[in-house]
This record gives sequence, structure tokens and C-alpha cells, in this order.
Amino acid sequence: MFEKLPRKVKVVEVGMRDGLQNEKNFIPTQEKIRLINMLNQTGLEQIEITSFVSPKWIPQLADSLEVAVSIERSQNITYSALVPNNRGLDSAQATGIKEVVFFLSASESHSQKNINKSVKEAIRIGKEVINQALSVNIKVRANLSTVFGCPFDGPTESQKVLEICQELLSAGVYEVAISDTTGVANPKQVSDVVNFLSHDIDLNKIAVHFHDTRGSGLANALAALQCGISTFDSSFGGLGGCPFAPGASGNIATEDLVYMFHGMGVKTGINLNKLVDCSRYAQKLLERKLPSKYLQASTFACDEVIAWTKDYL
Amino acid sequence: MFEKLPRKVKVVEVGMRDGLQNEKNFIPTQEKIRLINMLNQTGLEQIEITSFVSPKWIPQLADSLEVAVSIERSQNITYSALVPNNRGLDSAQATGIKEVVFFLSASESHSQKNINKSVKEAIRIGKEVINQALSVNIKVRANLSTVFGCPFDGPTESQKVLEICQELLSAGVYEVAISDTTGVANPKQVSDVVNFLSHDIDLNKIAVHFHDTRGSGLANALAALQCGISTFDSSFGGLGGCPFAPGASGNIATEDLVYMFHGMGVKTGINLNKLVDCSRYAQKLLERKLPSKYLQASTFACDEVIAWTKDYL
Repeated sequence: MFEKLPRKVKVVEVGMRDGLQNEKNFIPTQEKIRLINMLNQTGLEQIEITSFVSPKWIPQLADSLEVAVSIERSQNITYSALVPNNRGLDSAQATGIKEVVFFLSASESHSQKNINKSVKEAIRIGKEVINQALSVNIKVRANLSTVFGCPFDGPTESQKVLEICQELLSAGVYEVAISDTTGVANPKQVSDVVNFLSHDIDLNKIAVHFHDTRGSGLANALAALQCGISTFDSSFGGLGGCPFAPGASGNIATEDLVYMFHGMGVKTGINLNKLVDCSRYAQKLLERKLPSKYLQASTFACDEVIAWTKDYL
Repeated sequence: MFEKLPRKVKVVEVGMRDGLQNEKNFIPTQEKIRLINMLNQTGLEQIEITSFVSPKWIPQLADSLEVAVSIERSQNITYSALVPNNRGLDSAQATGIKEVVFFLSASESHSQKNINKSVKEAIRIGKEVINQALSVNIKVRANLSTVFGCPFDGPTESQKVLEICQELLSAGVYEVAISDTTGVANPKQVSDVVNFLSHDIDLNKIAVHFHDTRGSGLANALAALQCGISTFDSSFGGLGGCPFAPGASGNIATEDLVYMFHGMGVKTGINLNKLVDCSRYAQKLLERKLPSKYLQASTFACDEVIAWTKDYL
């Protein structure tokens, strides 16, 4: 079952965007810039740095423009930012960014409640973004929400997910990240959905984006890996959560994902110690303990070695 | 990869023992009894209720005798208690318990630091426990620590694990729970170790006991399930941790494990809502938020439904 693992996977660090947008505290602009500059040193290949949405929606990322123009950019790293429409794209474009992420839902009710538009309308807007972006050599990635279930509509039809993915890929996105928005997926379902998509779509065009809301996040990532997925979204420190559910988890933690992959002999190119430094710094800024288990374990022990003198099992 | 899953697995609830022994706060005896009586209502088949070790070692469980004699016992549930030697067994026996758990390490340094004895000597003491227990019709389970790595000795040889398991099974234990004591395992290693053991041991005599110290606990449980393991130790609410590492996780959380298994169509017989009630009660007693993700998500939402009105992905 682990005979055919990829030797190397790509981790897309989404903590600065998906993480911070769900944190209660606002991180000062200069500190955001510093955090991204620290992330630059970890070996990450791709970082979602911010979101060009209305500050009314996401006040935590109201400083997207300044962040995007002020960070140090490494030639080996792809920087991307979320844009909801062409207005967002205009702002992103002005910062010289080379990749944007467009988001939409696979379920009608989530789409309506989230952006007040139908899925069909969201796809139309997405195509506008794609057309404009490609015309100025900006790559587009899509993030498709509620692929594994919707809090309003229940289970999502895999056929519908397939059709949306195909439409977006045909329109020019290079990759669709299928997302378990509210963390309801289980590994068998992940396997079922990915295998279903693989009949019609090359899996190197599919990434996975898991939330750890019910604890299955890493198990879901494992199932995706076993199915042949090689691009994984995650958030350093496990930054994020749900603003309405204190204690509820957000994205899977990059440290935990990387620790698991490295242990399995799957390379990520990421230096865990340097990543932990970033998370520790974010913890200080946010004044809360972040949910990454690896982070917490490493904070009180010398890396791999925890000597539990009172451990009886 | 998920074609041959078992239809039903057994969860061994170890929160009252492995969980509480690693909690800083002492739970009053009457509250422990109440918690076990609540756990009786959840559908669990097996509960480790306490530990008959010296109160000097584990003051949190100094009331083992009173707990063991005072709980309501359901005919459908196996109650067990940890015993380190025949003195512990004498105490356990006096309470009328029908099953005991003997623990030992697979690595020399952990064995020395933990119980001040070599592995060989621990096995000898284990055989004394087994002999006496079986002579009075008490079943014996073994919990083998540091199977996936030792904080002092590093990696553990699978051959050594196999030999210890075989010796214990020959001596009369009905099952060995192989334990990732400090949470260092990864799913590939779990698969390697379980497959290695399966050549010489019937897998229905092997259980797994994972800690979530670095976040891989549920992924490791998934790998074990895929290899044919059908008995899983876990702790309600994710009770426990490491007394020397605040924030570090203990056992995998029963809720999270059960949520994942049920989603995959693997039955446990456990009612998740009733289990969450137990964990909420334990949270109040311990005055801290327990690490189970499912627990935290369900505390702020109506079960499967979390409506994140500000969720943009």
C-alpha cells in the first residue's frame, strides 16, 4: 500500500492567507512581511501570501497591497494571492505577482451564502479572471470548496466536482485544489473522489486542501498521497481555525504534514526546524498556542527526542 | 486500497488510565466513577479503568481500588486495569476485575528509565503476572512500549518486537498492543512493522496504541486498519498528554478515531454524541480544553453542520 509513493511532493503554504483570515487578531503589516521573509528561508516552493478581497470581508488581510509589494521575493518560490474577481486581479497585478488563486464552491448553498452567487455565476466570474490573468502572463490556480460535503447541502456529487474541475481546467487554470472546507471528509471518501476524478483528469492538475476540523486531516492527506496526489495545501503552525468555533481547527499544519511525509521517505524540500521558527514567531504575534502538534512537541523537547521520565506506556 | 476494510473494529478506551495518569489535575474519586459510568452508556466494549501501581509513581490514580469496586459494571463491557507486577495483580484481583494489562518496553533504555529493569527482567515479571492471573481466570493483555522508536535508543528493531510479542503470547497474553509511546511513528513504518509481525503472528492478537504527539496518530491508525488491524486504543477527548510538555498530545482521541471510522463505513458500536458528553464532563473537571478536534468542533456547532458564514474557502 506504500510501495508507489512519490519521492517528492509539493507543499503550498496557505497560512498567511487561509490561516490569517480566520485568526481573530490582526497581525501588523510589518510582521506579516517579516513572517513571509522567514518562510522564504524554509525551503517552501509556493506561498499564498494574501488575499485581494474587500477589507470589509476580511479585515485581517486589508494590507494585502503593502504586503505583496514589500516582501522579499525569492526566484525559487512561487508567490500567489487570492482574488475573488477582476477587481481583485487588478490590485494583485499591480504588485507584480505571477500567480493568483480563484475560489468557488462546489455546492449551491455554500456558494450563495459565501459569495451571494450561484456556482454557475461563480464559474463565469472565474473565467473572466482567468482570461485577464492569462493575457498578462499570470498563472491561475482554482480552489474549489465543499468538495467533500457542504454544511448546508450535505454530500457533494463527485460528478459535479468533476464537471467544475474540467470547466476550470479547460478555461486555463493549471491546477484545481479540491477542498474539504469544513473538515468533514474521511480517507475512504478522499480515495473515492480522487479516483473518480483520475479517470478524466491528470492527477498532477489536482491538489488537495484539507482542514483538520474533526481530526482526520492528516489521514485524508495520506489517502490522497496513496492515490497519487502530489500537491498539498497546509498552514504553518496550523494557523487559522473558525472564528465562530473557538478551538476548532483550520488547515492541516505544515509541520505535521512534513514530519509525516519525511518519515515515510517522501521529500518536501522543507526544513522543519526553520518552519517551526516561523510558527513560534506567529504564536507570539497572535498570543495563542497554535494547533500544530509537531510544533507543540518540539517546543518542549529537543526535536525528535522527548524523554518522558514519568511515561509508563 | 480501502476495498478490504473490516466491517467492525474494537476500540479500547484508555482515557481513564493512560489519559488521567498524564493529567496534572487529580480527578476526585467520585467523579472518576461517574465518568466510567457515563462511558458505560456509549457503546464501548472495553474500558481500561485504572492502574494498580504505586501512588508514588502515579498519584493521579491512587484511588484505583475504590474506583474499581465502585463503578457499575455492564455485562457487555470488559473492564481492565494496569498492573506492573503480582503485587498490583493482587490488588486488582481483590476488586473482582476480569482482565489486567501488563506493560513493558521494547527498548532497553526506556525499560531501564521507566521501571529500572531490563527488558528480559520485565518479561520475567510479566510471566509471573500471566501465570498468577490465568490461574484465577483473569485474562491478560500486554502493552508493549516504544515499538516504533525510543527517545533514548532511537529506532526499534522489528525482529526484537516480534520476539517479545511471541514470548508474551506463548506465555498466555491474549493480545499485545504495540505502542508508539512518544508519537514518533509514521504510516509507512506502521505498515512495515504490522506486515512484518503478520508473517508470524495472527493479527487478531495485535492491537495498536498510538499517541498523537506529532499529529500522525490518526494517519497511523488508518495505516494499521489498512494492514488488517482491528483493535485500537484511544482516549476520550484525547485525555492525557505529557506532563513535561504542556500542549503536547497524548493518546489519539476516541471521538476523532470513531468519526473517521464511521465515515469510512467501519463500525465501532460507539455513540459519538454520548462519548462527547463524557469528554465535555471531563473538560469541566480538568478545567482545560481537551485536544479532541471532533469534540471542539461539536461544542460550537450542531454536530455535522458548521455554518461558517465568513468562510471563504
